[in-house]
Amino acid sequence: MKAPRYLAIAAVTLDGRIAADEDHFSNWTSKEDKKFMRSLLDTCDVVIVGNNTYKTAKKPLSKRNCIVLTRSIPGTKRMAPNLMYLNTKGAKLKQIIINAKYKKVAVLGGAQVYTYCLEREMITDLYLTVEPVIFGAGIPLFAGKLKLRKPKILSVKKLNRKGALLIHARLRAL
Amino acid sequence: MKAPRYLAIAAVTLDGRIAADEDHFSNWTSKEDKKFMRSLLDTCDVVIVGNNTYKTAKKPLSKRNCIVLTRSIPGTKRMAPNLMYLNTKGAKLKQIIINAKYKKVAVLGGAQVYTYCLEREMITDLYLTVEPVIFGAGIPLFAGKLKLRKPKILSVKKLNRKGALLIHARLRAL
Repeated sequence: MKAPRYLAIAAVTLDGRIAADEDHFSNWTSKEDKKFMRSLLDTCDVVIVGNNTYKTAKKPLSKRNCIVLTRSIPGTKRMAPNLMYLNTKGAKLKQIIINAKYKKVAVLGGAQVYTYCLEREMITDLYLTVEPVIFGAGIPLFAGKLKLRKPKILSVKKLNRKGALLIHARLRAL
Repeated sequence: MKAPRYLAIAAVTLDGRIAADEDHFSNWTSKEDKKFMRSLLDTCDVVIVGNNTYKTAKKPLSKRNCIVLTRSIPGTKRMAPNLMYLNTKGAKLKQIIINAKYKKVAVLGGAQVYTYCLEREMITDLYLTVEPVIFGAGIPLFAGKLKLRKPKILSVKKLNRKGALLIHARLRAL
Protein backbone atom coordinates (compact mmCIF):
# COMPACT_ATOMS: atom_id res chain seq x y z
CA MET A 1 0.00 0.00 0.00
CA LYS A 2 1.31 3.42 -0.94
CA ALA A 3 2.18 5.71 1.96
CA PRO A 4 -0.04 8.78 2.23
CA ARG A 5 1.11 12.10 0.81
CA TYR A 6 1.21 14.99 3.25
CA LEU A 7 0.75 18.44 1.75
CA ALA A 8 1.69 21.34 4.00
CA ILE A 9 -0.19 24.38 2.72
CA ALA A 10 0.93 27.74 4.05
CA ALA A 11 1.05 31.42 3.21
CA VAL A 12 3.97 33.52 4.40
CA THR A 13 4.92 37.17 4.19
CA LEU A 14 8.12 38.26 2.42
CA ASP A 15 9.70 38.22 5.88
CA GLY A 16 8.64 34.63 6.53
CA ARG A 17 5.69 35.05 8.90
CA ILE A 18 2.50 32.99 8.78
CA ALA A 19 0.68 35.39 11.08
CA ALA A 20 1.26 38.62 12.96
CA ASP A 21 0.02 36.99 16.17
CA GLU A 22 -1.83 33.93 17.52
CA ASP A 23 -5.36 34.89 16.46
CA HIS A 24 -4.46 35.89 12.96
CA PHE A 25 -5.43 33.26 10.40
CA SER A 26 -5.51 34.27 6.78
CA ASN A 27 -7.34 37.55 6.41
CA TRP A 28 -4.16 39.09 5.01
CA THR A 29 -3.68 36.66 2.10
CA SER A 30 -4.78 37.36 -1.46
CA LYS A 31 -8.03 36.06 -2.88
CA GLU A 32 -5.97 34.14 -5.44
CA ASP A 33 -4.21 32.29 -2.62
CA LYS A 34 -7.51 31.51 -0.90
CA LYS A 35 -8.90 30.19 -4.17
CA PHE A 36 -5.83 28.06 -4.77
CA MET A 37 -5.99 26.71 -1.21
CA ARG A 38 -9.66 25.77 -1.53
CA SER A 39 -9.11 23.91 -4.79
CA LEU A 40 -6.10 22.07 -3.38
CA LEU A 41 -8.07 21.16 -0.23
CA ASP A 42 -10.81 19.76 -2.47
CA THR A 43 -8.31 17.13 -3.66
CA CYS A 44 -7.33 16.11 -0.11
CA ASP A 45 -8.99 13.37 1.98
CA VAL A 46 -8.48 15.01 5.34
CA VAL A 47 -7.16 18.16 6.98
CA ILE A 48 -4.81 18.22 9.98
CA VAL A 49 -5.02 21.49 11.83
CA GLY A 50 -4.19 22.89 15.26
CA ASN A 51 -7.00 23.95 17.56
CA ASN A 52 -6.16 27.68 17.39
CA THR A 53 -6.06 27.69 13.61
CA TYR A 54 -9.20 25.56 13.48
CA LYS A 55 -11.11 28.06 15.60
CA THR A 56 -10.24 30.90 13.21
CA ALA A 57 -11.54 28.90 10.23
CA LYS A 58 -14.29 26.74 11.71
CA LYS A 59 -16.90 27.56 9.09
CA PRO A 60 -14.91 26.91 5.89
CA LEU A 61 -13.44 23.75 7.46
CA SER A 62 -16.77 22.36 8.69
CA LYS A 63 -17.52 20.66 5.36
CA ARG A 64 -14.16 18.83 5.29
CA ASN A 65 -12.78 15.80 7.12
CA CYS A 66 -10.75 17.35 9.93
CA ILE A 67 -8.38 16.08 12.58
CA VAL A 68 -7.90 18.88 15.09
CA LEU A 69 -4.75 18.57 17.20
CA THR A 70 -5.39 19.65 20.76
CA ARG A 71 -4.30 19.07 24.34
CA SER A 72 -7.87 19.57 25.61
CA ILE A 73 -8.68 15.82 25.51
CA PRO A 74 -6.47 12.83 26.44
CA GLY A 75 -6.63 10.65 23.28
CA THR A 76 -9.13 10.98 20.45
CA LYS A 77 -12.71 12.12 20.48
CA ARG A 78 -15.11 12.18 17.56
CA MET A 79 -17.02 15.47 17.68
CA ALA A 80 -18.98 15.00 14.45
CA PRO A 81 -18.95 12.43 11.62
CA ASN A 82 -16.19 14.39 9.85
CA LEU A 83 -14.46 15.91 12.88
CA MET A 84 -12.00 14.25 15.26
CA TYR A 85 -10.12 15.88 18.12
CA LEU A 86 -6.77 14.24 18.74
CA ASN A 87 -4.03 14.66 21.33
CA THR A 88 -0.72 13.52 19.88
CA LYS A 89 0.46 12.58 23.39
CA GLY A 90 -2.31 9.97 23.67
CA ALA A 91 -2.99 8.82 20.10
CA LYS A 92 -0.95 7.81 17.08
CA LEU A 93 -1.78 10.32 14.36
CA LYS A 94 0.23 8.60 11.64
CA GLN A 95 -1.39 5.21 12.31
CA ILE A 96 -4.89 6.70 12.46
CA ILE A 97 -4.35 8.22 9.01
CA ILE A 98 -3.15 4.90 7.61
CA ASN A 99 -6.05 2.99 9.21
CA ALA A 100 -8.56 5.45 7.74
CA LYS A 101 -6.96 4.81 4.32
CA TYR A 102 -6.44 8.54 3.76
CA LYS A 103 -4.15 8.96 0.75
CA LYS A 104 -3.75 12.73 0.62
CA VAL A 105 -3.52 14.72 3.80
CA ALA A 106 -3.54 18.52 4.05
CA VAL A 107 -1.43 19.99 6.87
CA LEU A 108 -2.88 23.45 7.49
CA GLY A 109 -0.92 24.76 10.45
CA GLY A 110 -0.28 26.70 12.61
CA ALA A 111 3.43 26.70 13.31
CA GLN A 112 3.25 24.00 16.00
CA VAL A 113 1.42 21.63 13.65
CA TYR A 114 3.73 22.34 10.70
CA THR A 115 6.70 21.71 13.00
CA TYR A 116 5.20 18.54 14.51
CA CYS A 117 4.57 17.12 11.05
CA LEU A 118 7.96 18.13 9.64
CA GLU A 119 9.78 16.50 12.56
CA ARG A 120 7.92 13.21 11.90
CA GLU A 121 8.43 13.17 8.11
CA MET A 122 4.75 13.99 7.71
CA ILE A 123 5.34 16.64 5.07
CA THR A 124 6.03 15.30 1.59
CA ASP A 125 5.08 18.50 -0.23
CA LEU A 126 5.11 22.15 0.74
CA TYR A 127 2.78 24.55 -1.08
CA LEU A 128 4.04 27.92 0.03
CA THR A 129 2.42 31.16 -1.03
CA VAL A 130 4.71 34.17 -0.55
CA GLU A 131 2.55 37.28 -0.29
CA PRO A 132 4.04 40.75 -0.98
CA VAL A 133 3.52 41.87 2.60
CA ILE A 134 5.95 42.58 5.44
CA PHE A 135 4.89 42.15 9.07
CA GLY A 136 8.33 42.75 10.62
CA ALA A 137 7.37 40.45 13.48
CA GLY A 138 5.06 37.52 14.11
CA ILE A 139 4.89 33.76 13.90
CA PRO A 140 7.36 31.92 11.67
CA LEU A 141 6.45 28.85 9.60
CA PHE A 142 8.41 26.40 11.74
CA ALA A 143 9.43 26.68 15.36
CA GLY A 144 11.71 23.79 16.12
CA LYS A 145 15.26 22.62 16.23
CA LEU A 146 15.10 20.78 12.97
CA LYS A 147 17.75 19.35 10.76
CA LEU A 148 18.64 21.27 7.61
CA ARG A 149 16.64 20.16 4.60
CA LYS A 150 17.06 20.89 0.93
CA PRO A 151 13.70 20.46 -0.74
CA LYS A 152 13.37 20.23 -4.50
CA ILE A 153 11.47 23.13 -6.05
CA LEU A 154 8.95 21.60 -8.45
CA SER A 155 7.30 24.81 -9.60
CA VAL A 156 7.01 28.54 -9.00
CA LYS A 157 3.94 30.38 -10.18
CA LYS A 158 2.87 34.00 -10.04
CA LEU A 159 -0.60 34.01 -8.49
CA ASN A 160 -1.60 37.58 -9.30
CA ARG A 161 -0.43 40.95 -10.60
CA LYS A 162 0.58 42.09 -7.14
CA GLY A 163 3.29 39.43 -7.20
CA ALA A 164 2.05 36.73 -4.82
CA LEU A 165 4.13 33.64 -5.57
CA LEU A 166 3.19 29.99 -5.18
CA ILE A 167 6.16 27.70 -4.58
CA HIS A 168 5.68 23.94 -4.72
CA ALA A 169 8.55 22.12 -3.00
CA ARG A 170 9.02 18.37 -2.61
CA LEU A 171 10.47 17.58 0.79
CA ARG A 172 11.08 13.91 0.27
CA ALA A 173 10.56 11.25 -2.34
CA LEU A 174 7.32 9.27 -2.04
CA MET B 1 19.29 66.70 -4.38
CA LYS B 2 17.86 63.24 -4.82
CA ALA B 3 17.53 61.20 -1.64
CA PRO B 4 19.79 58.13 -1.51
CA ARG B 5 18.42 54.72 -2.44
CA TYR B 6 18.75 52.05 0.21
CA LEU B 7 18.97 48.48 -1.07
CA ALA B 8 18.45 45.78 1.53
CA ILE B 9 20.10 42.63 0.17
CA ALA B 10 19.25 39.39 1.96
CA ALA B 11 19.00 35.66 1.44
CA VAL B 12 16.36 33.69 3.29
CA THR B 13 15.40 30.04 3.54
CA LEU B 14 11.95 28.85 2.46
CA ASP B 15 11.01 29.17 6.12
CA GLY B 16 12.14 32.79 6.28
CA ARG B 17 15.47 32.55 8.12
CA ILE B 18 18.56 34.57 7.27
CA ALA B 19 20.79 32.34 9.40
CA ALA B 20 20.57 29.26 11.61
CA ASP B 21 22.34 31.13 14.42
CA GLU B 22 24.40 34.24 15.20
CA ASP B 23 27.69 33.16 13.59
CA HIS B 24 26.19 31.92 10.38
CA PHE B 25 26.67 34.35 7.48
CA SER B 26 26.13 33.05 4.00
CA ASN B 27 27.89 29.73 3.57
CA TRP B 28 24.50 28.10 2.89
CA THR B 29 23.51 30.31 -0.06
CA SER B 30 23.96 29.34 -3.69
CA LYS B 31 26.91 30.50 -5.75
CA GLU B 32 24.40 32.22 -8.06
CA ASP B 33 23.15 34.31 -5.13
CA LYS B 34 26.70 35.19 -4.09
CA LYS B 35 27.50 36.22 -7.65
CA PHE B 36 24.35 38.34 -7.86
CA MET B 37 25.12 39.97 -4.50
CA ARG B 38 28.67 40.84 -5.55
CA SER B 39 27.55 42.43 -8.80
CA LEU B 40 24.82 44.41 -7.02
CA LEU B 41 27.32 45.55 -4.35
CA ASP B 42 29.61 46.73 -7.15
CA THR B 43 26.94 49.28 -8.08
CA CYS B 44 26.58 50.59 -4.51
CA ASP B 45 28.56 53.46 -2.99
CA VAL B 46 28.65 52.11 0.55
CA VAL B 47 27.66 49.10 2.63
CA ILE B 48 25.88 49.31 5.99
CA VAL B 49 26.43 46.18 8.03
CA GLY B 50 26.23 45.07 11.65
CA ASN B 51 29.39 44.17 13.50
CA ASN B 52 28.57 40.44 13.78
CA THR B 53 27.82 40.14 10.09
CA TYR B 54 30.87 42.24 9.23
CA LYS B 55 33.14 39.88 11.19
CA THR B 56 31.90 36.87 9.22
CA ALA B 57 32.60 38.62 5.91
CA LYS B 58 35.57 40.88 6.69
CA LYS B 59 37.67 39.84 3.74
CA PRO B 60 35.15 40.26 0.89
CA LEU B 61 33.96 43.53 2.46
CA SER B 62 37.45 44.99 2.97
CA LYS B 63 37.59 46.40 -0.57
CA ARG B 64 34.25 48.25 -0.20
CA ASN B 65 33.22 51.44 1.60
CA CYS B 66 31.73 50.12 4.82
CA ILE B 67 29.85 51.62 7.74
CA VAL B 68 29.83 49.02 10.51
CA LEU B 69 27.10 49.54 13.11
CA THR B 70 28.38 48.74 16.57
CA ARG B 71 27.93 49.60 20.24
CA SER B 72 31.67 49.19 20.89
CA ILE B 73 32.44 52.88 20.33
CA PRO B 74 30.43 55.96 21.42
CA GLY B 75 30.00 57.88 18.12
CA THR B 76 31.94 57.32 14.93
CA LYS B 77 35.50 56.15 14.41
CA ARG B 78 37.34 55.86 11.12
CA MET B 79 39.24 52.53 11.17
CA ALA B 80 40.61 52.75 7.62
CA PRO B 81 40.08 55.10 4.64
CA ASN B 82 37.05 53.03 3.55
CA LEU B 83 35.87 51.75 6.96
CA MET B 84 33.87 53.64 9.57
CA TYR B 85 32.53 52.25 12.84
CA LEU B 86 29.32 53.95 13.93
CA ASN B 87 27.11 53.77 16.99
CA THR B 88 23.58 54.81 16.05
CA LYS B 89 23.04 56.04 19.64
CA GLY B 90 25.81 58.63 19.19
CA ALA B 91 25.84 59.49 15.49
CA LYS B 92 23.29 60.28 12.81
CA LEU B 93 23.64 57.56 10.20
CA LYS B 94 21.17 59.08 7.74
CA GLN B 95 22.87 62.50 7.85
CA ILE B 96 26.35 60.99 7.49
CA ILE B 97 25.21 59.20 4.33
CA ILE B 98 23.77 62.41 2.91
CA ASN B 99 26.90 64.42 3.82
CA ALA B 100 29.12 61.82 2.13
CA LYS B 101 26.94 62.19 -1.00
CA TYR B 102 26.34 58.45 -1.19
CA LYS B 103 23.56 57.81 -3.70
CA LYS B 104 23.15 54.05 -3.46
CA VAL B 105 23.50 52.33 -0.11
CA ALA B 106 23.59 48.54 0.43
CA VAL B 107 22.02 47.32 3.67
CA LEU B 108 23.58 43.92 4.31
CA GLY B 109 22.18 42.86 7.67
CA GLY B 110 21.94 41.09 10.03
CA ALA B 111 18.41 41.18 11.39
CA GLN B 112 19.05 44.10 13.77
CA VAL B 113 20.41 46.25 10.96
CA TYR B 114 17.63 45.32 8.53
CA THR B 115 15.11 46.17 11.27
CA TYR B 116 16.84 49.42 12.23
CA CYS B 117 16.83 50.57 8.61
CA LEU B 118 13.25 49.47 7.92
CA GLU B 119 11.97 51.32 10.98
CA ARG B 120 13.65 54.53 9.73
CA GLU B 121 12.50 54.29 6.11
CA MET B 122 16.04 53.42 5.13
CA ILE B 123 15.03 50.57 2.84
CA THR B 124 13.73 51.65 -0.54
CA ASP B 125 14.35 48.30 -2.26
CA LEU B 126 14.52 44.74 -1.00
CA TYR B 127 16.50 42.20 -3.00
CA LEU B 128 15.47 38.93 -1.41
CA THR B 129 16.90 35.61 -2.50
CA VAL B 130 14.77 32.67 -1.39
CA GLU B 131 16.96 29.57 -1.26
CA PRO B 132 15.40 26.07 -1.40
CA VAL B 133 16.55 25.22 2.11
CA ILE B 134 14.66 24.77 5.37
CA PHE B 135 16.34 25.48 8.72
CA GLY B 136 13.23 25.02 10.91
CA ALA B 137 14.68 27.52 13.37
CA GLY B 138 17.04 30.47 13.34
CA ILE B 139 17.14 34.21 12.80
CA PRO B 140 14.30 35.89 10.90
CA LEU B 141 14.82 38.77 8.44
CA PHE B 142 13.24 41.40 10.71
CA ALA B 143 12.87 41.41 14.46
CA GLY B 144 10.74 44.37 15.38
CA LYS B 145 7.26 45.57 16.03
CA LEU B 146 6.82 47.14 12.66
CA LYS B 147 3.80 48.41 10.84
CA LEU B 148 2.41 46.27 8.05
CA ARG B 149 3.83 47.13 4.66
CA LYS B 150 2.78 46.10 1.19
CA PRO B 151 5.79 46.37 -1.08
CA LYS B 152 5.45 46.31 -4.83
CA ILE B 153 7.06 43.28 -6.46
CA LEU B 154 9.10 44.60 -9.39
CA SER B 155 10.54 41.29 -10.56
CA VAL B 156 10.97 37.61 -9.72
CA LYS B 157 13.81 35.66 -11.28
CA LYS B 158 14.91 32.05 -11.02
CA LEU B 159 18.59 32.16 -10.12
CA ASN B 160 19.47 28.52 -10.81
CA ARG B 161 18.11 25.06 -11.61
CA LYS B 162 17.70 24.22 -7.94
CA GLY B 163 15.03 26.87 -7.74
CA ALA B 164 16.63 29.74 -5.84
CA LEU B 165 14.45 32.78 -6.46
CA LEU B 166 15.40 36.43 -6.53
CA ILE B 167 12.58 38.80 -5.60
CA HIS B 168 13.01 42.54 -6.11
CA ALA B 169 10.48 44.49 -4.07
CA ARG B 170 10.05 48.25 -3.90
CA LEU B 171 9.23 49.35 -0.38
CA ARG B 172 8.51 52.98 -1.06
CA ALA B 173 8.55 55.39 -3.94
CA LEU B 174 11.74 57.37 -4.40
